[in-house]
Amino acid sequence: MLQRFNFKNGLIHAIAQHRQTGEVLMLAHMNEDALRRTIETKRAHYWSRSRNRIWRKGEKSSNEQIVHEIRVDCDGDAVLLKVDQIGGACHMGYMSCFYRDVDGNVLAEKVFEPEKVYGDVSR
Amino acid sequence: MLQRFNFKNGLIHAIAQHRQTGEVLMLAHMNEDALRRTIETKRAHYWSRSRNRIWRKGEKSSNEQIVHEIRVDCDGDAVLLKVDQIGGACHMGYMSCFYRDVDGNVLAEKVFEPEKVYGDVSR
Repeated sequence: MLQRFNFKNGLIHAIAQHRQTGEVLMLAHMNEDALRRTIETKRAHYWSRSRNRIWRKGEKSSNEQIVHEIRVDCDGDAVLLKVDQIGGACHMGYMSCFYRDVDGNVLAEKVFEPEKVYGDVSR
Repeated sequence: MLQRFNFKNGLIHAIAQHRQTGEVLMLAHMNEDALRRTIETKRAHYWSRSRNRIWRKGEKSSNEQIVHEIRVDCDGDAVLLKVDQIGGACHMGYMSCFYRDVDGNVLAEKVFEPEKVYGDVSR
Protein backbone atom coordinates (compact mmCIF):
# COMPACT_ATOMS: atom_id res chain seq x y z
CA MET A 1 0.00 0.00 0.00
CA LEU A 2 2.65 2.50 1.04
CA GLN A 3 4.35 2.66 -2.33
CA ARG A 4 1.47 4.87 -3.47
CA PHE A 5 2.50 7.50 -0.95
CA ASN A 6 5.09 10.16 -1.23
CA PHE A 7 6.10 11.13 2.29
CA LYS A 8 8.08 14.38 2.41
CA ASN A 9 10.14 14.66 5.57
CA GLY A 10 8.10 11.69 6.74
CA LEU A 11 4.73 13.41 6.30
CA ILE A 12 1.79 13.65 3.95
CA HIS A 13 -1.05 16.16 4.04
CA ALA A 14 -4.47 15.02 5.23
CA ILE A 15 -7.74 16.81 4.49
CA ALA A 16 -10.84 15.81 6.45
CA GLN A 17 -14.19 16.32 4.73
CA HIS A 18 -17.64 15.85 6.23
CA ARG A 19 -19.05 12.93 4.29
CA GLN A 20 -22.67 14.10 4.41
CA THR A 21 -22.41 17.85 3.88
CA GLY A 22 -19.15 17.91 1.88
CA GLU A 23 -17.81 20.64 4.17
CA VAL A 24 -14.02 20.73 4.34
CA LEU A 25 -13.28 20.40 8.05
CA MET A 26 -9.54 20.69 8.55
CA LEU A 27 -6.08 20.16 7.15
CA ALA A 28 -3.47 18.27 9.13
CA HIS A 29 -0.55 15.92 8.55
CA MET A 30 0.14 12.21 8.91
CA ASN A 31 3.25 10.12 9.17
CA GLU A 32 3.18 6.48 8.08
CA ASP A 33 2.13 5.27 11.50
CA ALA A 34 -0.75 7.77 11.76
CA LEU A 35 -1.95 6.71 8.32
CA ARG A 36 -1.74 3.04 9.26
CA ARG A 37 -3.65 3.58 12.50
CA THR A 38 -6.29 5.59 10.65
CA ILE A 39 -6.79 2.78 8.13
CA GLU A 40 -6.85 0.08 10.81
CA THR A 41 -9.07 1.78 13.40
CA LYS A 42 -11.22 3.93 11.08
CA ARG A 43 -10.54 6.82 13.45
CA ALA A 44 -8.48 9.76 12.18
CA HIS A 45 -4.95 9.92 13.57
CA TYR A 46 -2.60 12.77 12.71
CA TRP A 47 0.98 13.81 13.32
CA SER A 48 1.32 16.97 15.36
CA ARG A 49 4.23 19.01 14.03
CA SER A 50 4.16 21.26 17.11
CA ARG A 51 3.95 18.49 19.71
CA ASN A 52 5.98 16.02 17.67
CA ARG A 53 3.70 13.07 18.32
CA ILE A 54 0.75 11.18 16.89
CA TRP A 55 -2.66 12.25 18.14
CA ARG A 56 -6.03 10.69 17.66
CA LYS A 57 -8.59 13.34 16.72
CA GLY A 58 -10.94 13.56 19.69
CA GLU A 59 -8.55 12.03 22.24
CA LYS A 60 -9.07 15.09 24.46
CA SER A 61 -12.28 16.62 23.11
CA SER A 62 -14.15 13.39 22.22
CA ASN A 63 -14.76 15.03 18.84
CA GLU A 64 -13.70 11.95 16.93
CA GLN A 65 -13.62 11.51 13.18
CA ILE A 66 -15.03 8.21 11.98
CA VAL A 67 -13.38 7.52 8.65
CA HIS A 68 -15.57 6.04 5.93
CA GLU A 69 -13.31 6.51 2.95
CA ILE A 70 -9.73 7.53 2.20
CA ARG A 71 -8.64 8.90 -1.15
CA VAL A 72 -5.06 9.48 -2.33
CA ASP A 73 -4.06 12.30 -4.64
CA CYS A 74 -2.22 11.96 -7.95
CA ASP A 75 1.27 12.59 -6.60
CA GLY A 76 0.72 10.65 -3.40
CA ASP A 77 1.53 13.40 -0.93
CA ALA A 78 -2.02 14.03 0.30
CA VAL A 79 -5.02 12.02 1.44
CA LEU A 80 -8.66 13.00 1.68
CA LEU A 81 -10.65 11.49 4.54
CA LYS A 82 -14.42 11.35 4.29
CA VAL A 83 -15.58 11.34 7.87
CA ASP A 84 -18.44 11.52 10.26
CA GLN A 85 -17.44 14.34 12.59
CA ILE A 86 -18.54 14.02 16.20
CA GLY A 87 -19.10 17.50 17.73
CA GLY A 88 -16.97 19.84 15.62
CA ALA A 89 -13.53 19.60 14.05
CA CYS A 90 -12.11 22.96 15.10
CA HIS A 91 -10.50 23.55 18.51
CA MET A 92 -12.13 27.01 18.41
CA GLY A 93 -15.59 25.43 18.64
CA TYR A 94 -16.62 25.42 15.00
CA MET A 95 -17.60 22.49 12.79
CA SER A 96 -14.83 23.44 10.36
CA CYS A 97 -11.47 25.13 10.91
CA PHE A 98 -12.28 27.21 7.81
CA TYR A 99 -14.81 29.45 9.57
CA ARG A 100 -13.39 32.84 8.47
CA ASP A 101 -12.95 34.70 5.22
CA VAL A 102 -9.67 36.43 4.30
CA ASP A 103 -10.85 39.64 5.94
CA GLY A 104 -11.31 37.82 9.24
CA ASN A 105 -15.10 37.79 9.20
CA VAL A 106 -16.53 34.79 11.03
CA LEU A 107 -18.94 32.98 8.73
CA ALA A 108 -20.10 30.11 10.94
CA GLU A 109 -21.75 29.49 14.29
CA LYS A 110 -19.97 27.63 17.06
CA VAL A 111 -21.19 24.09 17.58
CA PHE A 112 -19.55 23.63 20.99
CA GLU A 113 -17.90 25.71 23.71
CA PRO A 114 -14.16 25.14 23.29
CA GLU A 115 -13.28 26.22 26.85
CA LYS A 116 -15.43 23.44 28.25
CA VAL A 117 -13.79 20.87 26.00
CA TYR A 118 -10.17 21.95 25.78
CA GLY A 119 -9.64 24.41 28.63
CA ASP A 120 -7.39 27.20 27.32
CA VAL A 121 -7.62 27.67 23.55
CA SER A 122 -5.76 30.96 23.29
CA ARG A 123 -3.42 29.99 20.52
CA MET B 1 -5.02 41.11 5.69
CA LEU B 2 -1.76 39.18 5.82
CA GLN B 3 -1.50 39.19 9.61
CA ARG B 4 -4.15 36.49 9.63
CA PHE B 5 -1.79 34.18 7.80
CA ASN B 6 0.90 32.01 9.18
CA PHE B 7 3.37 31.35 6.38
CA LYS B 8 5.78 28.52 7.18
CA ASN B 9 8.94 28.71 5.08
CA GLY B 10 7.03 31.32 3.11
CA LEU B 11 4.12 29.03 2.24
CA ILE B 12 0.57 28.19 3.26
CA HIS B 13 -1.50 25.21 2.14
CA ALA B 14 -4.32 25.77 -0.33
CA ILE B 15 -7.23 23.40 -0.88
CA ALA B 16 -9.44 23.91 -3.93
CA GLN B 17 -13.04 22.75 -3.65
CA HIS B 18 -15.65 22.66 -6.40
CA ARG B 19 -18.20 25.21 -5.27
CA GLN B 20 -21.22 23.43 -6.76
CA THR B 21 -20.53 19.77 -6.03
CA GLY B 22 -18.36 20.21 -2.92
CA GLU B 23 -15.78 17.85 -4.41
CA VAL B 24 -12.27 18.44 -3.07
CA LEU B 25 -10.20 19.03 -6.20
CA MET B 26 -6.57 19.41 -5.18
CA LEU B 27 -4.11 20.50 -2.55
CA ALA B 28 -1.30 22.89 -3.39
CA HIS B 29 0.69 25.71 -1.81
CA MET B 30 0.80 29.49 -2.00
CA ASN B 31 3.33 32.09 -1.08
CA GLU B 32 2.20 35.64 -0.25
CA ASP B 33 2.39 36.75 -3.85
CA ALA B 34 0.34 33.79 -5.12
CA LEU B 35 -2.31 34.50 -2.48
CA ARG B 36 -2.39 38.19 -3.40
CA ARG B 37 -2.72 37.43 -7.12
CA THR B 38 -5.49 34.92 -6.37
CA ILE B 39 -7.43 37.50 -4.37
CA GLU B 40 -6.90 40.24 -6.95
CA THR B 41 -7.58 38.28 -10.13
CA LYS B 42 -10.06 35.69 -8.76
CA ARG B 43 -8.00 33.05 -10.56
CA ALA B 44 -6.13 30.48 -8.48
CA HIS B 45 -2.36 31.01 -8.36
CA TYR B 46 -0.07 28.59 -6.56
CA TRP B 47 3.57 28.22 -5.66
CA SER B 48 5.23 25.24 -7.28
CA ARG B 49 7.70 23.70 -4.84
CA SER B 50 9.23 21.59 -7.61
CA ARG B 51 9.59 24.36 -10.19
CA ASN B 52 10.19 27.09 -7.62
CA ARG B 53 7.87 29.61 -9.20
CA ILE B 54 4.31 30.89 -9.14
CA TRP B 55 1.91 29.29 -11.57
CA ARG B 56 -1.60 30.20 -12.52
CA LYS B 57 -3.79 27.11 -12.57
CA GLY B 58 -4.71 26.58 -16.22
CA GLU B 59 -1.82 28.59 -17.67
CA LYS B 60 -0.88 25.57 -19.79
CA SER B 61 -4.05 23.46 -19.77
CA SER B 62 -6.64 26.29 -19.80
CA ASN B 63 -8.24 24.44 -16.88
CA GLU B 64 -8.59 27.58 -14.82
CA GLN B 65 -10.06 27.89 -11.36
CA ILE B 66 -12.40 30.84 -10.95
CA VAL B 67 -12.33 31.68 -7.26
CA HIS B 68 -15.64 32.66 -5.67
CA GLU B 69 -14.71 32.49 -2.02
CA ILE B 70 -11.58 32.10 0.10
CA ARG B 71 -11.67 30.81 3.66
CA VAL B 72 -8.80 30.84 6.18
CA ASP B 73 -8.31 28.16 8.80
CA CYS B 74 -8.02 28.69 12.55
CA ASP B 75 -4.25 28.75 12.70
CA GLY B 76 -3.80 30.69 9.48
CA ASP B 77 -1.62 28.20 7.63
CA ALA B 78 -4.23 27.00 5.13
CA VAL B 79 -6.83 28.48 2.81
CA LEU B 80 -9.85 26.88 1.21
CA LEU B 81 -10.78 28.12 -2.27
CA LYS B 82 -14.30 27.58 -3.52
CA VAL B 83 -13.95 27.51 -7.26
CA ASP B 84 -15.55 26.92 -10.58
CA GLN B 85 -13.24 24.41 -12.22
CA ILE B 86 -12.86 24.66 -15.98
CA GLY B 87 -12.16 21.21 -17.47
CA GLY B 88 -10.66 19.20 -14.62
CA ALA B 89 -8.21 19.98 -11.84
CA CYS B 90 -5.92 16.97 -12.11
CA HIS B 91 -3.02 16.79 -14.58
CA MET B 92 -3.92 13.11 -15.02
CA GLY B 93 -7.23 14.05 -16.65
CA TYR B 94 -9.61 13.75 -13.71
CA MET B 95 -11.88 16.38 -12.18
CA SER B 96 -10.15 15.85 -8.82
CA CYS B 97 -6.62 14.80 -7.94
CA PHE B 98 -8.19 12.49 -5.34
CA TYR B 99 -9.39 9.92 -7.86
CA ARG B 100 -7.94 6.78 -6.17
CA ASP B 101 -8.50 4.92 -2.93
CA VAL B 102 -5.59 3.76 -0.75
CA ASP B 103 -5.45 0.45 -2.60
CA GLY B 104 -4.90 2.29 -5.87
CA ASN B 105 -8.33 1.64 -7.35
CA VAL B 106 -9.42 4.41 -9.68
CA LEU B 107 -12.84 5.68 -8.59
CA ALA B 108 -13.52 8.37 -11.18
CA GLU B 109 -13.79 8.81 -14.94
CA LYS B 110 -11.43 11.04 -16.85
CA VAL B 111 -12.93 14.34 -17.94
CA PHE B 112 -10.20 15.20 -20.43
CA GLU B 113 -7.28 13.55 -22.21
CA PRO B 114 -4.17 14.74 -20.38
CA GLU B 115 -1.79 13.94 -23.25
CA LYS B 116 -3.68 16.37 -25.47
CA VAL B 117 -3.51 19.11 -22.86
CA TYR B 118 -0.14 18.68 -21.20
CA GLY B 119 1.88 16.44 -23.51
CA ASP B 120 3.90 14.04 -21.34
CA VAL B 121 2.27 13.37 -17.95
CA SER B 122 4.42 10.41 -16.91
CA ARG B 123 5.20 11.57 -13.40
